[in-house]
Amino acid sequence: VHVDLNADLGEGFGIWRLGDDDALLEIVTSANVACGFHAGDPVTMRRVCAHAAERGVAIGAQVSYRDLAGFGRRRMDVEPDDLAADVIHQIGALDAFARVAGDRVRYVKPHGALYNTAADDAEQAGAIVEAAAAFDASLILLGPAGSCLADAASRAGLAFVTEAFADRGYLPTGRLVPRDQRGALIEDPDIAAERAVRIVAEGRVRAVNGTDVEIFAESICVHGDTPGAVAIARAVRAALGDAGIELAPFAP
Amino acid sequence: VHVDLNADLGEGFGIWRLGDDDALLEIVTSANVACGFHAGDPVTMRRVCAHAAERGVAIGAQVSYRDLAGFGRRRMDVEPDDLAADVIHQIGALDAFARVAGDRVRYVKPHGALYNTAADDAEQAGAIVEAAAAFDASLILLGPAGSCLADAASRAGLAFVTEAFADRGYLPTGRLVPRDQRGALIEDPDIAAERAVRIVAEGRVRAVNGTDVEIFAESICVHGDTPGAVAIARAVRAALGDAGIELAPFAP
Amino acid sequence: VHVDLNADLGEGFGIWRLGDDDALLEIVTSANVACGFHAGDPVTMRRVCAHAAERGVAIGAQVSYRDLAGFGRRRMDVEPDDLAADVIHQIGALDAFARVAGDRVRYVKPHGALYNTAADDAEQAGAIVEAAAAFDASLILLGPAGSCLADAASRAGLAFVTEAFADRGYLPTGRLVPRDQRGALIEDPDIAAERAVRIVAEGRVRAVNGTDVEIFAESICVHGDTPGAVAIARAVRAALGDAGIELAPFAP
Amino acid sequence: VHVDLNADLGEGFGIWRLGDDDALLEIVTSANVACGFHAGDPVTMRRVCAHAAERGVAIGAQVSYRDLAGFGRRRMDVEPDDLAADVIHQIGALDAFARVAGDRVRYVKPHGALYNTAADDAEQAGAIVEAAAAFDASLILLGPAGSCLADAASRAGLAFVTEAFADRGYLPTGRLVPRDQRGALIEDPDIAAERAVRIVAEGRVRAVNGTDVEIFAESICVHGDTPGAVAIARAVRAALGDAGIELAPFAP
Repeated sequence: VHVDLNADLGEGFGIWRLGDDDALLEIVTSANVACGFHAGDPVTMRRVCAHAAERGVAIGAQVSYRDLAGFGRRRMDVEPDDLAADVIHQIGALDAFARVAGDRVRYVKPHGALYNTAADDAEQAGAIVEAAAAFDASLILLGPAGSCLADAASRAGLAFVTEAFADRGYLPTGRLVPRDQRGALIEDPDIAAERAVRIVAEGRVRAVNGTDVEIFAESICVHGDTPGAVAIARAVRAALGDAGIELAPFAP
Repeated sequence: VHVDLNADLGEGFGIWRLGDDDALLEIVTSANVACGFHAGDPVTMRRVCAHAAERGVAIGAQVSYRDLAGFGRRRMDVEPDDLAADVIHQIGALDAFARVAGDRVRYVKPHGALYNTAADDAEQAGAIVEAAAAFDASLILLGPAGSCLADAASRAGLAFVTEAFADRGYLPTGRLVPRDQRGALIEDPDIAAERAVRIVAEGRVRAVNGTDVEIFAESICVHGDTPGAVAIARAVRAALGDAGIELAPFAP
Repeated sequence: VHVDLNADLGEGFGIWRLGDDDALLEIVTSANVACGFHAGDPVTMRRVCAHAAERGVAIGAQVSYRDLAGFGRRRMDVEPDDLAADVIHQIGALDAFARVAGDRVRYVKPHGALYNTAADDAEQAGAIVEAAAAFDASLILLGPAGSCLADAASRAGLAFVTEAFADRGYLPTGRLVPRDQRGALIEDPDIAAERAVRIVAEGRVRAVNGTDVEIFAESICVHGDTPGAVAIARAVRAALGDAGIELAPFAP
Repeated sequence: VHVDLNADLGEGFGIWRLGDDDALLEIVTSANVACGFHAGDPVTMRRVCAHAAERGVAIGAQVSYRDLAGFGRRRMDVEPDDLAADVIHQIGALDAFARVAGDRVRYVKPHGALYNTAADDAEQAGAIVEAAAAFDASLILLGPAGSCLADAASRAGLAFVTEAFADRGYLPTGRLVPRDQRGALIEDPDIAAERAVRIVAEGRVRAVNGTDVEIFAESICVHGDTPGAVAIARAVRAALGDAGIELAPFAP
């Protein structure tokens, strides 16, 4: 049994920092690196790619709407052709830093509002996949199970990897508890770790109403930008190891 | 005898256009494509790369300071590490669109204030070359003869191609007449064309004081953003052809 | 009988121009000046305000989502507090240039996607009105009749002025023909002019299906960014004058 | 005896924070608020202005080059007309939030590279002063003694207030020790506090070579973005109070 552990990295911009990239790069097996549209200046992109390549952490392009002021968290009605070009631009810029570090971008994960939109909006999901396929048909898409993004990847012949969240609550439907509701966030590292192990080992997670939900995930996402994020990520990694689950990037 | 003909392309942003990309792509052999820092939105970058690849026009990254508001025409005291990362970012983003079009970025030319700074400032010139070499050591640098950029390329083992201007006046020193002085611009297409032929055929150009200056150029630059730019470019191309000079990209 | 004539102005950015500001400032009585979020650099804002003040043209803040790359034409799910602060920022920046020119911002008109959203979305409309009221309760809102923006202004006690379009087709419902349908644009200056006169003199316009629609407008909008825009604006102004309709800003 | 205590505030952008605005607003008497060009999103500008107005802290516009990616720390060769318009834009945007809070912008202080350039470059200093004077001739300029900015303010008839730094080392010439040299930063709150008292009470500060330098300052600047910044600011405020020096904004 094995699983991937992914986190968002390089989400500062210029003088501003967010999260502890170096600590997380010691923990995760895949790094979703910000590409400059919601966060991520070139120097940070270069440094994160260099460190990821050194540590054998897979580099993924965390692509977003062009919205630095809103950190990519605001849905935008972008035309598919514009969105596809925006995504190619971001993948290409990050791939340059990956190549400079002797590596390559291995996968693409939409960020923030684009992540949510790509789950439900076939047009925008299709644009993301079209971009990835046009750049490199061996790129893998990372996102939520049962999403428009998964469908679009499937239609285009691109590999799709599903992820689950160690530090987020789930509804009985298998969807995440919205951030403004009780139980949205799991803040106790031990509980997050226990849930991660159960997701991987049993394919189940306890929902907020106390029932179990089936969930399939090839990658576990831990967040990097909350207080205690690194502690949660460490606990998840340790618990997975203790349970005999091997941690390895999903990307070859 | 042969020479390359280059022009700046893709210098719109969003709704705004500058110059006639399609007309110039029928004339030039190398396209200096804006990469988003002084101009160049992703949709435009994609379209220009596609059209250039179709026509066999070599794609070059026209890299700049990050200054949309000033069109990259204002010198900035950027630290070398920051500048190198900015340049890698731009080359990578453009290369993505070139790859999507089945091609590659073949060369790098600094734009605007960075062009001028790279001529005289060894540190910034070195950062540009470091970036190009880190991305792909087969990239060629395009710029002015006798510049810090040429020196830096030479030290790094990168090829350097010198250019001359068909539509700019020259001082007896071989430098360009500054834009705010008489004789800075050649606006008559026939005169521009005649000068281009003489530069290539004889290695000389008539300076503003009436004397001849020796000048060596493997590429002739025509501007795309002035009224009459396309007419000048057409006249230059025609005259070179009439003089038996073959037009071909300098990049292999 | 009198009416106002408004147009969007100052919609360039840096080196890029859009429309003929100087020509339109000789024609209109109110100028919707871009404030930097979808277009409008500071030098342009200063120049347009100076020219408007000289000519007695009323200065309005054409406020937008923060989206230079998309020219403010893409709906964004911005939180009301964020949107209100964005609108205050834009009004304040423009008011500075109006004051430097000895004048003041007199009204606020949302641009592009925000114009459309403000028609139907009470939350975003409320944020725009809250911002205007907080900055200066004597500001007037300019927009479509029967909109959420009109309702919000009414509730907040701010004056609201309705506008109609000389160069756009109307549905029998009184709504505009969508831009991707036949009859969306009126390109013949004489027809546009005749429609403007009828809107003001009779309160009616001929819809695309041939029936008449009642329409009430205190201001006629002419566009500045289309080919022939200036010709249409001139024709509208001349026809209104010929019909004995006085042109005057709605703002005191 | 009295003095002003100023700090840079509101220097986050979007999701990113820098410094502890609320803590510093309890300590300083003047707030240099970022205006969006190097930092400072509209929501932050609104909040900082509201809190400053509540506490009777004077609001100043901390104006900068347009350089979010470089935090305004990179000199730019901006033309005076462009720089003046940029400064008016920033003052106006901040003034809008000050007005919404029932207050006004009282003074202007250049930030980062523009601060340094305004000390030595008469043209850029003149542009800043021209902008301030055009917006409101009662605005005060805050900056270093003996600077081009002071000269320009004097020529334009604007008030100028000089500042000294509690937490920076001085050369025997009265200039600051450059940041990359030993002694540039004073990190011990007690030493910083003691130096601040001596500057105000005696008009002297001990330079890095051990000699005393005469220094005249109507305002003491404490930094907000360094670790321990708040502790230094508190210590400076307490020591000034203990020495019987009244703290009050320089702006009326």
